[in-house]
Amino acid sequence: MSGFPESEYRRRCKTLQGGMKASGLDALLVTTEADLRYLTGFLTRFWESPTRPWFAVLPAKGAPIAVIPGIGAELMATTWIADIRTWPAPRPGDDGVGLLAEVLAGLVPASGAVGLPMGPASQLRMPLADFKTLRHRLAPRRFADAAGLIADTRAIKSEPEIARIREICAIAGRAFDRVPGFATTGTPLSRIFREFQIALLDEGADWVPYVAGGAGPGGYGDVISPASDRPLAAGDVLMLDTGAVKAGYFCDYDRNWSVGKPAAETAAAQALLHAATEAGLAAARPGATAADVFHAMQRVIARAGEAGAGGRLGHGVGMQLTEGLSLTAEDRTELRPGMVITLEPGIQIGPGRMLVHEEDIVIRDGAAELLTPRAPATLPILS
Amino acid sequence: MSGFPESEYRRRCKTLQGGMKASGLDALLVTTEADLRYLTGFLTRFWESPTRPWFAVLPAKGAPIAVIPGIGAELMATTWIADIRTWPAPRPGDDGVGLLAEVLAGLVPASGAVGLPMGPASQLRMPLADFKTLRHRLAPRRFADAAGLIADTRAIKSEPEIARIREICAIAGRAFDRVPGFATTGTPLSRIFREFQIALLDEGADWVPYVAGGAGPGGYGDVISPASDRPLAAGDVLMLDTGAVKAGYFCDYDRNWSVGKPAAETAAAQALLHAATEAGLAAARPGATAADVFHAMQRVIARAGEAGAGGRLGHGVGMQLTEGLSLTAEDRTELRPGMVITLEPGIQIGPGRMLVHEEDIVIRDGAAELLTPRAPATLPILS
Repeated sequence: MSGFPESEYRRRCKTLQGGMKASGLDALLVTTEADLRYLTGFLTRFWESPTRPWFAVLPAKGAPIAVIPGIGAELMATTWIADIRTWPAPRPGDDGVGLLAEVLAGLVPASGAVGLPMGPASQLRMPLADFKTLRHRLAPRRFADAAGLIADTRAIKSEPEIARIREICAIAGRAFDRVPGFATTGTPLSRIFREFQIALLDEGADWVPYVAGGAGPGGYGDVISPASDRPLAAGDVLMLDTGAVKAGYFCDYDRNWSVGKPAAETAAAQALLHAATEAGLAAARPGATAADVFHAMQRVIARAGEAGAGGRLGHGVGMQLTEGLSLTAEDRTELRPGMVITLEPGIQIGPGRMLVHEEDIVIRDGAAELLTPRAPATLPILS
Repeated sequence: MSGFPESEYRRRCKTLQGGMKASGLDALLVTTEADLRYLTGFLTRFWESPTRPWFAVLPAKGAPIAVIPGIGAELMATTWIADIRTWPAPRPGDDGVGLLAEVLAGLVPASGAVGLPMGPASQLRMPLADFKTLRHRLAPRRFADAAGLIADTRAIKSEPEIARIREICAIAGRAFDRVPGFATTGTPLSRIFREFQIALLDEGADWVPYVAGGAGPGGYGDVISPASDRPLAAGDVLMLDTGAVKAGYFCDYDRNWSVGKPAAETAAAQALLHAATEAGLAAARPGATAADVFHAMQRVIARAGEAGAGGRLGHGVGMQLTEGLSLTAEDRTELRPGMVITLEPGIQIGPGRMLVHEEDIVIRDGAAELLTPRAPATLPILS
């Protein structure tokens, strides 16, 4: 099953409620897939349909209340949530807003505040016009930003959460191991992407929300493109990057291969990225900041006289492909045990040619624990 | 390649600009994957990462301007968009808001209005706090709802768009044909879901954002759940539903099977749903409303003395799994040639037991064209 024991959700709610009390929030409103699932355990791919809004409300005390379209009632009833309010969505005119306002008005005094993620990296998953109506209905109650509170709480993973990320990392590792079997000279990149997704599923991924990559002579141009039909050619570097999911948790890492023996500069770039990742691993300890880990990796690349590629050199990962902190010079977030992050250094070898590495780790007391099978210091060769 | 010829995008922009003029909008701001891709052709799975906002602005005349994170510059440069403004995201403090405000201020007079989707089924994909800053920076310029304008424009598909939906429907049809090969008695539903996704990819889908389904004695409990590990058993009805993607366009339809000979009431439900879909097909002509098609299907089910299942009996489909109109009693949207919709009648056979059918069609002058291989009137049998 996809859910955790009820104790996991109660712990999450308690932590959030502690933060709510400190911030003077009388209720917390969440609207996105990950936030709602974090509170309730509600897991479905139905979020792919943008038509209907979904809400969960966490009171100052006690369990969350689900305020959701009727189509989700049966599935929500399998979670630990007892208080489930539904409306027949889509319903033009009042698509859940009246019901939600009623729930919030019952929990938040007129002088009180509703916490809602509004800050960096957050999104409101309901129509803006409906939110305006909701604010109007709830006035004079205030809305206050809760993006930081939720991000900070979600950032520290429990052992059951870490186990899921470890499992999907292992699944992806086995899929990466199968790449030489189908990524051969002359095979179109689109076919390779397809076979890679098949390998991920076959090895045990529940679904594959993210695959990107690239291939080009001695490096690739970017890291977010979908596949072209260009056949793999001798001298190419191939990169595949995946965010696959097991029981609702993501891995996010990539691997590189050389088609035939790599050029000297390509081999050097691979070795340098391996060394940069080692430096990142060594720096990723409790008390260090995201910026410290960024600098530890960036320093290795700069000292070798190379230009870095990619804006940030890593980020949090868990219920979303990317979440929480960014490994940049500006992010002073302090690392704490239980945080799961990626280390993602890159080198711009030349115009339109880069090489990017990525590993997933969990911060532990002392040295970090690697969740991904470590990439080799020398590029594996495809035939 | 994933893009259309430039003429396709110019046509879209011209249609939108006609609507903007009629509504007094000086620019149109879009923030979601589908809307941005509709204007630009920018196709990437990188939207899976919620960290960075992406913007496109359509002026009253001329081509769109992309205002995007630097990580997307190389890929955006492969589209027809010439004016690409980037910032190094994520950048706490100003994650693109200053740049976006500058672009909009240059296009919209102080007394003017920015169109932004705010109405039903829309979402603003940027932090609410950043939107507040943007509004403040642009004051006294107004923001006006453009959800209807964009939805109406996107609803009428061009022949190249229809060709893509037809292709992914055919791909899914071949994958559905393979189901009896792996959905056998004793196989866990989770394995069936995995094998079905593999079949979709192997038959040519680029990726599989949505798979749902269910299996249970004589029917299933809901239609949005992920797979459990329960083994398929004799007497079960199995349903698989997919939104798979080819070149950025979705199919959305399902198929049902009986494990062994179906009970009489199950067989009757299948025949009734087939008949209801036929009635929907016959009603789906230009000039009819969404409500007319809903009633045509609902009438067949009600006359047989059965209870309908599912809130709406179909919806638009295209760049998103669900988009545009809903086949409900309330939706008076008039059908027009080029609209692609699903027909999705359902029957509640008993408590926790339903049966749902789905086909994808395109509205034509005269009779609608079926894009999916038509489901049979009798349940196919699994062994």
